[in-house]
Amino acid sequence: MNFDDITALDKADPLAHKRNEFALPANTIYLDGNSLGALPKVVQSRVAEVVSQQWGEHLIRSWNDHQWIDLPTQVGEKIAPIIGAAAGQVICCDSISINLFKLLSSALSLNSGRNVVLSTEDNFPTDLYMVQGLSDLLGEDLCQLKLVSEHQIAQSLTEDVAVLLLTQVNFRTGQLLDMQALTKLAHEKGILVIWDLAHSAGATVVELDKCNADFAVGCGYKYLNGGPGSPAFLYVAKRHQTAVKQPLSGWMGHVKPFAFDAQYQGAEGINQYLCGTPSVLSMSALDAALDVWQDVSILQVRKKSIALADIFTQLIQSQSCLADLRLRSTNDSQQRGSQLAFAHDNAFAICQALIEKGVIADFRAPNILRFGFTPLYNSFEDIWNAVTILAEVVQSHLYKEPRFNKAGKVT
Amino acid sequence: MNFDDITALDKADPLAHKRNEFALPANTIYLDGNSLGALPKVVQSRVAEVVSQQWGEHLIRSWNDHQWIDLPTQVGEKIAPIIGAAAGQVICCDSISINLFKLLSSALSLNSGRNVVLSTEDNFPTDLYMVQGLSDLLGEDLCQLKLVSEHQIAQSLTEDVAVLLLTQVNFRTGQLLDMQALTKLAHEKGILVIWDLAHSAGATVVELDKCNADFAVGCGYKYLNGGPGSPAFLYVAKRHQTAVKQPLSGWMGHVKPFAFDAQYQGAEGINQYLCGTPSVLSMSALDAALDVWQDVSILQVRKKSIALADIFTQLIQSQSCLADLRLRSTNDSQQRGSQLAFAHDNAFAICQALIEKGVIADFRAPNILRFGFTPLYNSFEDIWNAVTILAEVVQSHLYKEPRFNKAGKVT
Repeated sequence: MNFDDITALDKADPLAHKRNEFALPANTIYLDGNSLGALPKVVQSRVAEVVSQQWGEHLIRSWNDHQWIDLPTQVGEKIAPIIGAAAGQVICCDSISINLFKLLSSALSLNSGRNVVLSTEDNFPTDLYMVQGLSDLLGEDLCQLKLVSEHQIAQSLTEDVAVLLLTQVNFRTGQLLDMQALTKLAHEKGILVIWDLAHSAGATVVELDKCNADFAVGCGYKYLNGGPGSPAFLYVAKRHQTAVKQPLSGWMGHVKPFAFDAQYQGAEGINQYLCGTPSVLSMSALDAALDVWQDVSILQVRKKSIALADIFTQLIQSQSCLADLRLRSTNDSQQRGSQLAFAHDNAFAICQALIEKGVIADFRAPNILRFGFTPLYNSFEDIWNAVTILAEVVQSHLYKEPRFNKAGKVT
Repeated sequence: MNFDDITALDKADPLAHKRNEFALPANTIYLDGNSLGALPKVVQSRVAEVVSQQWGEHLIRSWNDHQWIDLPTQVGEKIAPIIGAAAGQVICCDSISINLFKLLSSALSLNSGRNVVLSTEDNFPTDLYMVQGLSDLLGEDLCQLKLVSEHQIAQSLTEDVAVLLLTQVNFRTGQLLDMQALTKLAHEKGILVIWDLAHSAGATVVELDKCNADFAVGCGYKYLNGGPGSPAFLYVAKRHQTAVKQPLSGWMGHVKPFAFDAQYQGAEGINQYLCGTPSVLSMSALDAALDVWQDVSILQVRKKSIALADIFTQLIQSQSCLADLRLRSTNDSQQRGSQLAFAHDNAFAICQALIEKGVIADFRAPNILRFGFTPLYNSFEDIWNAVTILAEVVQSHLYKEPRFNKAGKVT
């Protein structure tokens, strides 16, 4: 693999034109779209319009005139095709954590003879924390968290398990779980499944309906490029929507929010999962960001994602000075999301040195260097340059200088 | 009262210069700041900077470099002096509804021998809905909602009541409850109090610490001018912060969020009430909006609020054609927030006709016309002109034409 091969790949890339739809900083190779997606240019003008025109000029009238009230549904319906969901099953609201609380409650109540929520030891912590919060509230008789390793999932699907809570792509290693097979196995044991799509929505092929999924959550600020702290989304399969209930029953989930009834009555369908007033600025940003997906095939995204990661790995393996980077993701691209994790004793320092040289990757405790690949704006040349700079950093021991970020925080 | 008197009042107004800090639309009299505050000019530039520079250019690094991670605390501390709270007790996060769920759970758990949550029949519905959601989840043995009228509160403080949940200013009538007296009465019976400040924060004098308040919530999008669906805030008195727990235990409330521990351990102090990733765009808008308050005395705000409402009432009473507008707020300005409610059989149609003529008030079912007074940007001339136009609308029966808004929704 030489630079001419890389140039040829970029020339042949059917997604190459999408890069120009993002406002990427100069002299930067951004391999952290799995933490925070880059800024779509269309968001800049949309947010300015929402602030100055819709809010500033039209004020309260914009709830109707600019359909602010419809944003949660509208954004949900734009996300639906990206995650393989037919209409009427996805809504945008709150955060992943809050949405997990709603869905955990719904699933436990549908499966009320059982109490175990099964998840993985290395699931993203907030997923586990939300189960712990619910368990503290309800008591272990009604909600008990049980953790197993990723390879023990199948054998742990016993008949005391009410809910299987899995993140489709592991936040550290990028390991991709088999949604179809695991959902099927769980259903055979009467278990409902909640899928966290934080690292998979917009990054890999997600087929909720085809996999007969029950519930899912996901976030707007990674591969969907909705901006920092962008609202999350949730999915509830149509077949569950009449039987479910959820405890965060705020006024926006009421069947008639503006009747100001003292008695809660949940809306029909997915709207019953709304709670408080939607965050219009943030949700409008995500709404605009999703328009970037209109002419994008998720199959093309997946194909390019695999190619970017495979070439990145090959280039690293071709540099003897990078032998100390131990791949912690699987080599099998079919079992991986859109990121690679490498362990290195100096991972934190290397990450800081890379960032100073314009290659933005991220660090995850304790010793993981994480590179995310975003097919909509990463080029093959990005990958080539990133590995060149990484080799330079490691070879010259630039990373050995002590480096600290403000307040000792790592993000 | 004639127009010269009005002009003199504006000339003598110590808050008159604040109006220029807002981007108000031309030919509009905005009397709906109690629904959605107007746009502070400083928000426009701040949001543009957050989107284009902090997100677009600095990307993930802004969590540290631009202190995104500190926004919930920073915004909380800016709100604290407006509601009479010393440092370390207020944090910005989620919505009022979500925050009520956290505080209801905390208060019930502190008072675990009791199960009744006492509130008022005419409380804002979402407050009641959140109790109902928690009650459905826990069962009535642990959480039972009891509703009384506002004048029955004192006599209903019995020893089965765990939590008194009150909105300080009634959303329909503007009735202002006596926080000091009711908190004291409740405490004498061992009852904890949650105050909803949606219609009081930034509109009237709120003295949480002085009243020995336990808990409070409030919203960013009314008198604090944070924009549509702006994040909410919550207050927990210092003395409760070591004993409390709350079930929405997301990763941002963890003592060390970036250690990625599988076991939840809540942060000390008010930070334990954080849940998911903060909404940076919306929270930055609110953060900027709060800077408008730096040179503002809440006592001056309150004084002008009362003057605006009193003069509005006088002007209405001086017009015989407005005799059908029946004041549903108290005439006693000391017992009122910053709004007036008038009942009229054609309230909805009158409201629509007013809006078409540039006077923005709002309608609340079934027959209430609501006028909010925002001392930071409403002038006495606004009040004069609003009543003149209202008289014109009513006299010429302009409102009798049938008027509907889109989708039959009223906001």
